[in-house]
Amino acid sequence: MSRIERVALIGTGLIGASIGLALKSLDENLRIAVIGWDSNPAELTKAVEIGAIDQPLDPNDIYDPDVADVFVLATPVLPIMDWMERLAPGLHESQLVTDVGSTKREIVERARRLFNQPHRARFLPGHPMAGKESGGAALAEAGLFRGAAWLFTPLDKHTSEAERQWVRIVERFGARIMELDAARHDEVCAWVSHLPQMVATALAALVEERFAADPQGRAAVEAIGGRALREMTRLGASPYSMWRDVALTNTERIGETLTALSQRLDHIRENLRTPELREEFRTANRLRENR
Amino acid sequence: MSRIERVALIGTGLIGASIGLALKSLDENLRIAVIGWDSNPAELTKAVEIGAIDQPLDPNDIYDPDVADVFVLATPVLPIMDWMERLAPGLHESQLVTDVGSTKREIVERARRLFNQPHRARFLPGHPMAGKESGGAALAEAGLFRGAAWLFTPLDKHTSEAERQWVRIVERFGARIMELDAARHDEVCAWVSHLPQMVATALAALVEERFAADPQGRAAVEAIGGRALREMTRLGASPYSMWRDVALTNTERIGETLTALSQRLDHIRENLRTPELREEFRTANRLRENR
Repeated sequence: MSRIERVALIGTGLIGASIGLALKSLDENLRIAVIGWDSNPAELTKAVEIGAIDQPLDPNDIYDPDVADVFVLATPVLPIMDWMERLAPGLHESQLVTDVGSTKREIVERARRLFNQPHRARFLPGHPMAGKESGGAALAEAGLFRGAAWLFTPLDKHTSEAERQWVRIVERFGARIMELDAARHDEVCAWVSHLPQMVATALAALVEERFAADPQGRAAVEAIGGRALREMTRLGASPYSMWRDVALTNTERIGETLTALSQRLDHIRENLRTPELREEFRTANRLRENR
Repeated sequence: MSRIERVALIGTGLIGASIGLALKSLDENLRIAVIGWDSNPAELTKAVEIGAIDQPLDPNDIYDPDVADVFVLATPVLPIMDWMERLAPGLHESQLVTDVGSTKREIVERARRLFNQPHRARFLPGHPMAGKESGGAALAEAGLFRGAAWLFTPLDKHTSEAERQWVRIVERFGARIMELDAARHDEVCAWVSHLPQMVATALAALVEERFAADPQGRAAVEAIGGRALREMTRLGASPYSMWRDVALTNTERIGETLTALSQRLDHIRENLRTPELREEFRTANRLRENR
């Protein structure tokens, strides 16, 4: 393969469709054809409508060697792994499969078994750190990845021509490329992404339940609102579908962070009236100062 | 007193100075003179500089009956209570004291003892639900209260002419007035404001400490950043001074919310691989749908 000319998007939700739009907005002389498929026909229709894909991909055509140079798996993690199983036996050595899954260890394990071997396609695990409060192709934007980190957790030192090209394309999306080990990825993401999501969900669920049987209190919560509650529960509105797979494929790491935070909240509760509370605020402030 | 003509701001930080700017931007024909004092001379100078106050208030003049029709106590809660003690014995029946403290039960208790009695000034406890990530007069804005809730927790049914005028002025700031019981205020604010703040602080402190001795991990955290961590720790950068007083004057309520959240996080940890996680997300999503 000399140049990536055809990209197939498996999953045309917010991330998949945004990749499509970003690909279509590259320089004229790259002219990459983008096809796509989604398990939800409405998302697929929307992706065509907004110009994120040129045309739908017929899943029966996936083994046609001319159908795509690169497959981008842009679904939650479990369907990504299903698609890896489905694609691996029929693809050619020159083809590349990449993904945007939120956890990487289990995907890398499976990729080692299925790809990067003689007569098998290459697999480049990826994870763009981009998103919005809600998903769906309707919210897709060509600029979604501008300034965002796009993490890669390669299986080995070797990189094929297609991998190098894909990384250059991602750079042209405006993303900041970062390479790291898959286990490290899942650990850091547990702290910066998965734990915050679980906390936002817990907090929103708690407030919802606490005032469910107390209409007067509920009215006060709604009237007062509060910047704090809004900011802290915005993530709580994220769809379950994606997070179920994150929880299933990074259970241990997320569990560790939840235990640590739960203990930390107990510590704060015990110190609401002591100078130790000041130390908590000082340490917290350091995080922002250092960023 | 026929009309509020002179307002004294005790505390000219973000909230106090924003009240000053809002007062000065009212209709010409109201022409309210605004004087102010702050324990931090730099804040006071800044408040004069930005036009939030016409001139500094000399604390020795507070008992001069002509110095102000309304005193606005715009400091953390403990200094508010100190100022209540200091002002009460020397003010006149026609004068009004109001405050912007984040907790209301202890302030109301003290106000009952000190104000709203024969030969004593009136006290109207207030709490504008407005703020920014950082404090200080430099960030003050006349429009800070536009669309925000401004809570009042009156001591009794009676309202004086000065109280009615002050509430009308606050309405002209663009704030949504809400009256509620002080105990209810402290309960609801524990959930929508104090708990979110403590969680943001705990999360930021935890991430800060977790990666303090792990430069490679810390670099990854900084590079990855993540919208989730940013949103969930933004409040963690709030100043301790204000929150210490909140924690001291609403300890029990905040303690209850911390216990509840800590238990909820344990519940999520135990259910990372069960369908119960779906229920958590559903309940959390309801909070937003209902707002």
